[in-house]
Amino acid sequence: MNLGPGQEFDRIRAMLARIAEISGDHVSDIGDDCALLPLGSTTLAISIDNSLENVHFRTDWLDFKEIGCRAAGAALADLAAEGAKPLGLMVSLGAPPNEQGGSDPAAEIMAGVATLAHKLDARVLGGDLTRSDKYVIDVCVIGTAERPVRRSGAHEGDSLWVTGYLGGAALALDQFRAGKHMPAALRNRYACPEPRIEAGRWLAGHGASAMIDISDGLVSDAQHLAAASEVGIEIHLERIPCWEGVEATAAVASGEEFELLCTMPPTFGETSVSEFRAQTGLQLSRIGSCLRGAGGRRGGVRLLDHNAAVPLPAGYDHFAR
Amino acid sequence: MNLGPGQEFDRIRAMLARIAEISGDHVSDIGDDCALLPLGSTTLAISIDNSLENVHFRTDWLDFKEIGCRAAGAALADLAAEGAKPLGLMVSLGAPPNEQGGSDPAAEIMAGVATLAHKLDARVLGGDLTRSDKYVIDVCVIGTAERPVRRSGAHEGDSLWVTGYLGGAALALDQFRAGKHMPAALRNRYACPEPRIEAGRWLAGHGASAMIDISDGLVSDAQHLAAASEVGIEIHLERIPCWEGVEATAAVASGEEFELLCTMPPTFGETSVSEFRAQTGLQLSRIGSCLRGAGGRRGGVRLLDHNAAVPLPAGYDHFAR
Repeated sequence: MNLGPGQEFDRIRAMLARIAEISGDHVSDIGDDCALLPLGSTTLAISIDNSLENVHFRTDWLDFKEIGCRAAGAALADLAAEGAKPLGLMVSLGAPPNEQGGSDPAAEIMAGVATLAHKLDARVLGGDLTRSDKYVIDVCVIGTAERPVRRSGAHEGDSLWVTGYLGGAALALDQFRAGKHMPAALRNRYACPEPRIEAGRWLAGHGASAMIDISDGLVSDAQHLAAASEVGIEIHLERIPCWEGVEATAAVASGEEFELLCTMPPTFGETSVSEFRAQTGLQLSRIGSCLRGAGGRRGGVRLLDHNAAVPLPAGYDHFAR
Repeated sequence: MNLGPGQEFDRIRAMLARIAEISGDHVSDIGDDCALLPLGSTTLAISIDNSLENVHFRTDWLDFKEIGCRAAGAALADLAAEGAKPLGLMVSLGAPPNEQGGSDPAAEIMAGVATLAHKLDARVLGGDLTRSDKYVIDVCVIGTAERPVRRSGAHEGDSLWVTGYLGGAALALDQFRAGKHMPAALRNRYACPEPRIEAGRWLAGHGASAMIDISDGLVSDAQHLAAASEVGIEIHLERIPCWEGVEATAAVASGEEFELLCTMPPTFGETSVSEFRAQTGLQLSRIGSCLRGAGGRRGGVRLLDHNAAVPLPAGYDHFAR
């Protein structure tokens, strides 16, 4: 198993080593979007995603319903990246006492979770509530995957694709930081991003060889995919589908986009892209290709602007900030 | 659905109401130990349990491996109470940066989780790591139950039973508070309690009508069970199996014991108890019985000492402390 760069991954490696020591079992799935658990005739896909106040969200930027929506979205995006269909989710909520009276922020957070879950045919199955100084929302999602797509299946010669338009999440974050009002579509890129469940299932069903959701930024996530698949990846900056008003160099560094980055076999072409667009209403752009593995932890991602090499942007790493 | 008393439950009720509004779906399982999800020929039992520094544990009392063990134990105890067999667990870990160098507390926490999981034939499936000021360990457990046992199935005439000996967890907590050294067996009642997975499966297989794990204290959890089952419950204080050096009045209020409280049909008798003891190595004590439902949110639990009524101890409620 390979993991990308960053202090967070070093810590995860240390954790994996300790678990393997004790259980004699490699936790091979920890580097992927979901854990997979074969059960009867299906495969369970499971992921857990924690959202912490002042790390993942701020209560002066988002209302509590948006905070719940965003937390659920982050977890469900992992199922999307596996090509899985969500069944339901469990929510662990840490919340301060509700001293103001009036509508309880905890209930509003759950309303946000339930709204997004309902939109994607998933059920809120249960949860846990504990007292906490700050808001903490941990969401565990459970789904099934007929044909799970890992990060590790890309081959030399596969093409690289991305759904939607990138850069809106970072642009919205800038506007929040500057205290500026913004249009609803842009605000929602940050406040309530919609996981690409249908797109993920379509891509899985049409032969995706590897897939990941964009949470650390396109280039960083391409590095994770390249490292796991042991391929090199070449990305063409001029082909990046950018959110209105965002430069391609910013778009490839924008984290928490929740769009899907995937590799498709050489047979996948423009006719299939039209089908995808008609089915999902989303853009699908070919932005690069997989090369022979370059080795090394950065997984050999090259960024090109009209065939001239461009330096890679820094990735998103909670522990390095 | 009925929930017991306390501010925490009032908040949960408000959350359930908001979820039901949005999804048109009653989250009937939130009041139980596990959510149940029928899948193919089996039923998934899922539970999530959050452990927060300074709420559920203190780093000056427990070492990090114990903290991980305790967090995993709390989640697995919910599977035990459902009569379920664990498959695996997902762990969301919030941790401060490891600035001291040396062995990473995050890895030690995971070692504790893995040690307990391994002992109970469960796998660490995956997880999430985020930066946090304080340690937060959220564990989601997934298991299967052939015959899930809810809190709501007790009937008038059923007998009330409890596994093990009670009061050790509260006694250990007192010793920690007083900064006293204690024997390993007592320390582990708090530091690394063992979920009663095998006992839960045995009881489920032998007709348990309702079951709950003791997390809020025997009397409080009996109230939850009584409320969910719409029965009255009578508990005989002199029959409580007490940890050495603990009075029965303290034993029935001791929280986070992780022993099982269950109701069995009238046919369940002493022969079966011997079988249980031989199979699990645990005590099983008949401590009371189910009466006609007394109604009301406190679920009509009566505590008797040699047939004289005794006042109920206060329950354990995170938000009321």
